[in-house]
Amino acid sequence: MARTQGSHSDITGPRIREAALGLFARHGYAAVSMRQIAGEVGVQAGALYNYTPDKQSLLFRLMQDHMQDLLTTYGDLDGFDDPQEALRQFVGFHIRFHLQRPDEVFIAYMELRNLTPENFTEIEALRRRYEDSLEAVLCNGQNTGQFSVSDTKIATLAVIAMLNGVITWYRSGGRLSLDEVEQVYWDMVRKAVTA
Amino acid sequence: MARTQGSHSDITGPRIREAALGLFARHGYAAVSMRQIAGEVGVQAGALYNYTPDKQSLLFRLMQDHMQDLLTTYGDLDGFDDPQEALRQFVGFHIRFHLQRPDEVFIAYMELRNLTPENFTEIEALRRRYEDSLEAVLCNGQNTGQFSVSDTKIATLAVIAMLNGVITWYRSGGRLSLDEVEQVYWDMVRKAVTA
Repeated sequence: MARTQGSHSDITGPRIREAALGLFARHGYAAVSMRQIAGEVGVQAGALYNYTPDKQSLLFRLMQDHMQDLLTTYGDLDGFDDPQEALRQFVGFHIRFHLQRPDEVFIAYMELRNLTPENFTEIEALRRRYEDSLEAVLCNGQNTGQFSVSDTKIATLAVIAMLNGVITWYRSGGRLSLDEVEQVYWDMVRKAVTA
Repeated sequence: MARTQGSHSDITGPRIREAALGLFARHGYAAVSMRQIAGEVGVQAGALYNYTPDKQSLLFRLMQDHMQDLLTTYGDLDGFDDPQEALRQFVGFHIRFHLQRPDEVFIAYMELRNLTPENFTEIEALRRRYEDSLEAVLCNGQNTGQFSVSDTKIATLAVIAMLNGVITWYRSGGRLSLDEVEQVYWDMVRKAVTA
């Protein structure tokens, strides 16, 4: 009996997350009720509370999982010692990882204001860890003399912002292939941080 | 009598817009009711309909006014013939104009999904006009040989996205002055589009 219940919630968990992600991205966190999420999944609203204590926890977990997925996937890549190779890898990784997750990206930006202060602090710390990994690449390149930026922190934020722009306009099947887009952005990023 | 009513709605209009802007930015368009907006202004909900036919029109007008204000203010600057000077002017203008309007910027990005298809098309056309004015600068620089980008359209979007990043992190009174921030971004933009 316990086994069956366990299995049931194992299946329901991902469906709740998927439903919440889609609804939050379409209508915004504040406009979506637990009842709507339950309706989308096809369960009673009460069943949601076996999975999550409240809507805030659901939002926080979506954002936390997204950031941890980002950090883990990036961390699992074979790193390059050469700063220019490492930067090129970051550019390709960042574009491709985020293009596959448009709803998560949208929520990660838009719903920060709806996190409790404690949850906001945790998500910001994860985001900061990701930024720090890019800043470390830029600092290495400054040390070797391959890069020349006047402020590695701002350069980090500028590179990430530039790459995030791709996610808002790129549609597969458009004028340029993803490889071509990646090449154009890499050219600009490389030049922007080089002397 | 007509005069008094006219004056009254002249005053109420800006207050309705300001209340709607603040509420949409804080809670999201979908979560805000006309009743809430009226409550913030201190009028009955019915009084709002003297000013706007519905909530969609209110959102559209906020976004339209923002884009037209952007286009007009940029268009009113004394332009530079030299592409590098013109690009530098664009960078400074874009950062400063948007930093003064955080709520409008947030809504312009976040609430596109809540526009009707016709309204979306109109806002996109205005956004496109602004992008075209930057692309014209880049094309001029390509022609004079001062700039070298492999795709002026993507370079346009990349520059704007990079600059938009400032708006999400810059706080006055922080580590760097606005002049310093502008200088760091200008260095990176200039290098990114130069051979």
